[in-house]
Amino acid sequence: MVAVPGRGDTPLLLIAPRNRTIRDRLAADLAEVESRFAAELRSDLPCVNRLVTHIESYRGKMLRPTLVLVSAMGSNPQGGANKDAHRIIAAVVEMVHMATLAHDDILDDAEIRRGGTTINSLVGNESAVMLGDYLISHAYHLCSDIGRTDICRMIAESTNVTCEGELLQLANRGNWFLDEQTYFEIIRRKTACLCGMCCKIAAVLSGTTPATAAALYRYGQKLGTAFQIVDDVLDLTSDEQTTGKTVGRDLQKGKLTLPLIHCLSTVCPDDRTRLHDLLQAQGEPGASASTHTAAVDQIRRYLADSESVAYAQRSAGQLIADAKQAVMGHLAPSAARSLMLDMADAVLTRDC
Amino acid sequence: MVAVPGRGDTPLLLIAPRNRTIRDRLAADLAEVESRFAAELRSDLPCVNRLVTHIESYRGKMLRPTLVLVSAMGSNPQGGANKDAHRIIAAVVEMVHMATLAHDDILDDAEIRRGGTTINSLVGNESAVMLGDYLISHAYHLCSDIGRTDICRMIAESTNVTCEGELLQLANRGNWFLDEQTYFEIIRRKTACLCGMCCKIAAVLSGTTPATAAALYRYGQKLGTAFQIVDDVLDLTSDEQTTGKTVGRDLQKGKLTLPLIHCLSTVCPDDRTRLHDLLQAQGEPGASASTHTAAVDQIRRYLADSESVAYAQRSAGQLIADAKQAVMGHLAPSAARSLMLDMADAVLTRDC
Repeated sequence: MVAVPGRGDTPLLLIAPRNRTIRDRLAADLAEVESRFAAELRSDLPCVNRLVTHIESYRGKMLRPTLVLVSAMGSNPQGGANKDAHRIIAAVVEMVHMATLAHDDILDDAEIRRGGTTINSLVGNESAVMLGDYLISHAYHLCSDIGRTDICRMIAESTNVTCEGELLQLANRGNWFLDEQTYFEIIRRKTACLCGMCCKIAAVLSGTTPATAAALYRYGQKLGTAFQIVDDVLDLTSDEQTTGKTVGRDLQKGKLTLPLIHCLSTVCPDDRTRLHDLLQAQGEPGASASTHTAAVDQIRRYLADSESVAYAQRSAGQLIADAKQAVMGHLAPSAARSLMLDMADAVLTRDC
Repeated sequence: MVAVPGRGDTPLLLIAPRNRTIRDRLAADLAEVESRFAAELRSDLPCVNRLVTHIESYRGKMLRPTLVLVSAMGSNPQGGANKDAHRIIAAVVEMVHMATLAHDDILDDAEIRRGGTTINSLVGNESAVMLGDYLISHAYHLCSDIGRTDICRMIAESTNVTCEGELLQLANRGNWFLDEQTYFEIIRRKTACLCGMCCKIAAVLSGTTPATAAALYRYGQKLGTAFQIVDDVLDLTSDEQTTGKTVGRDLQKGKLTLPLIHCLSTVCPDDRTRLHDLLQAQGEPGASASTHTAAVDQIRRYLADSESVAYAQRSAGQLIADAKQAVMGHLAPSAARSLMLDMADAVLTRDC
């Protein structure tokens, strides 16, 4: 794993680059992204700086900045990733992503009554909204540093689509009859588009041909879709000690994801009815924590007895194969290209 | 008042231009701004379009787009306001403002328990957040249509400052000892900066000198500050039938504003203690609606017996005089300049 100064032992990346030069470049670039990120968010108001420290709670694997940096290296192995614009965009996409996380944590009435236990409890609903707004505003501000409206526009295009994905997901909240097509439409918009754009912008900044930029978009988009599927599988199958996240949170939020969509479509009619009853029961606004947990446990047992988790993993596997294909068809072999292929593979094997 | 096709009888503007040519131009420009606004927000997802219709509930006087348009005319009386870029920016700043309104409506735990009655009740906390995000993302997207990163940057700079203002306000929530200096710092950031930027961007797009652009910034900033003071006064002194808004909402949200800050600093120590007790009582998370109303009524009686509303009105009056001075010192006399002066005066006389 690549370590970044100041981040302690947190594993930042899904990948452990085999090439030492590549590893050092990536670590240096990520460290630079972190400083850009921190510098951009600094305010003259102490109350703002105090709130910004809560952002650390949202920090994850830096998937999106890493996509920018590896695509920069892959599309211009002679030094693309060292260009300042790439690092700026890497910080921008991380800000956009963190804003999404802050706003995803906003609780509704029922959740507040039930007692919210998410990161929002640290700062409250209103501060979480304002913190997200502060991040998104600074993302666009930092983006304008590059001085290219085509890049500003691509960032805005991807946030437009991300918002639509979030809204489509919200419109399907508690829809236990969600079909696979709508599920994929939601994650295409809310996750995959920004991941694709990370890679495409990196290619555009490296000055590649439009065909290569389009191929890199596909790489990021497919990888991002697979990443989301794996996230959704982990939410249903993992335990909190491994992931560090509340397990079953998607169900609590009324989100049906690929393993359960497949399970519902393949079980016998009686089991389907029983599963729908359990999904309804765990999501009832008046449900106690113990009712919720008991229902989720039963749902997890249904899943364990099915082929549905394997089905979701196969879907993710196919997407990763497509992502790798896009890269191999358009980039010449290089250490950076190998890194992109390794990164894609690592999406499938992560357990947190 | 200027009527805009499709807006029915809603009074859009604070001003009733005396010059017919100016009135027609402003009405045509505002109608164009409305179409740009609607076109930009249209989605291929029906659920998004349904949510966007709720935006109508947030529509107000279009202060910010009007500031852009009158500044465009004032800084280039020969046709500045007809330039497409001005109309785009007018739609952009309205989107930014509406996003702020949507996010201002997010309720905290206590308010939800008490039973929120704001616009948020139409769509829920989470949709209000996503709707605001959708608006802000499209604001930046539309802004990139102009193809100038300096303008994109100015918009991002002003949203950075607006967020800081909101965060400073939030940090002072329930601070019944807020001083006048901090109050002015909050409204400078959360309201006045964007208003100033509306006028400055219009001037920059008209190709004025930096000195004129700076003068127009001052005009918008001073006018915006006065507008906010009048808003704050109305929240304490008006009735719901006139304003169409919940009166006393600032107190409910723990916001101390200029009239009460002045009142607290001028009453005798006993009355000050009594007022602080009432402020505390109406804001208690457990307070019932009737306790809240009774306390607010008593606070309003204290205000009515004081000189503090008049003091706030005088402050607003001085700011409007400064705003007019900035315009008169830098723009040659024209029908458009008269409109800018009339608009400033109208801020002081509005009652809703």
